[in-house]
Amino acid sequence: MVTVDISLSLDGFVAGPNQTVEQPLGEGGEQLHQWIFGLASWRERHGEPGGERNADDEVLRESVDATGAVVMGRHMFSGGSGPWEDDPTADGWWGDDPPFGVPVFILTHHARETVTKRNGTSYTFVTDGPQAAVALARKAAGDRNVAVAGGANVVVQCLDAGLVDEMQLHVVPLLLGDGVRLFGGLETQRALDTIRVAHSPTVIHLKYRVAK
Amino acid sequence: MVTVDISLSLDGFVAGPNQTVEQPLGEGGEQLHQWIFGLASWRERHGEPGGERNADDEVLRESVDATGAVVMGRHMFSGGSGPWEDDPTADGWWGDDPPFGVPVFILTHHARETVTKRNGTSYTFVTDGPQAAVALARKAAGDRNVAVAGGANVVVQCLDAGLVDEMQLHVVPLLLGDGVRLFGGLETQRALDTIRVAHSPTVIHLKYRVAK
Repeated sequence: MVTVDISLSLDGFVAGPNQTVEQPLGEGGEQLHQWIFGLASWRERHGEPGGERNADDEVLRESVDATGAVVMGRHMFSGGSGPWEDDPTADGWWGDDPPFGVPVFILTHHARETVTKRNGTSYTFVTDGPQAAVALARKAAGDRNVAVAGGANVVVQCLDAGLVDEMQLHVVPLLLGDGVRLFGGLETQRALDTIRVAHSPTVIHLKYRVAK
Repeated sequence: MVTVDISLSLDGFVAGPNQTVEQPLGEGGEQLHQWIFGLASWRERHGEPGGERNADDEVLRESVDATGAVVMGRHMFSGGSGPWEDDPTADGWWGDDPPFGVPVFILTHHARETVTKRNGTSYTFVTDGPQAAVALARKAAGDRNVAVAGGANVVVQCLDAGLVDEMQLHVVPLLLGDGVRLFGGLETQRALDTIRVAHSPTVIHLKYRVAK
């Protein structure tokens, strides 16, 4: 199964305005991911004890446990748009201990050798489009899911190609006003079925099945 | 208190693409309001018995009971954008038995006499901006709320002016792809507090307090 799992503001932005190297999520955009960092399942993955065990933690844990491979765009890999985004040697902003723990397939225009990191994370660079990346990720994921992690344009391409089975949006109570929209250029209207609604004071998790 | 209460697609549209006289909510847009028509509280207001009594019905009833006056833009009054939208004599598309039951204040550039309809609905035309319309609506509402009903540009103007206390979005599980965005041109970032999340299979109701 192919899933989308992404945090966005109530007004639909996955990053705020004026992205820079220092502020790759734009003005206010870092608030979109604050709900994750204190959770027990996040801390476990980073080898740290403790953390909150609440509805958010259950949602994150379920999603992480179910994911066998990740697909992402080159901007998300390299750290947002900016002058470095087309540097084919850039090693991403995820560091030596990236949080994925599974094979990651990166959509790019630059062919590169696969890079292996710690804890099961590897980076494979795919130059022939989202369908090819999803096909490779399916093989790598085995029985588990392929998670399309972003950016927004990759999510929209996968939705338009009919590749997405389930979509979970983590809606943060914030109006960013401007920035990178998740749904900026979707070409086909699509019905959804609500699978689950979960929430805490800081985020609402909306999970849908996507009609094919 | 000033509230916003509006239905939108998961991708943020309050109307679909290609609005026409025959299809004022655009392609697919009529699906945004389907959740309302079978509910007991909606039927009661239209003098009809029966209807569903579920979470959606409770949300709608609460909202309607709390509303003492409505503010809307001239497009919403006249029936979407189109060649007739600037006709200063157009009587709206809400007919002789409109569903409001309270005074309605319409933002327009054309001064007109107030029109009185049945069941407590009246139309007052306000030419000096959203703050003036909200001030008049507050007086008319007494102890009850002023509901900013739309369109999107009126909601955004009221948010930017800091006039909105609470916002309830009725999110319909649908990707419309294009059309009229609710949050198209917000100028200020704003934090929200989640008040309540309610849902049925056909719609999710997200209620927030808006930080001033």
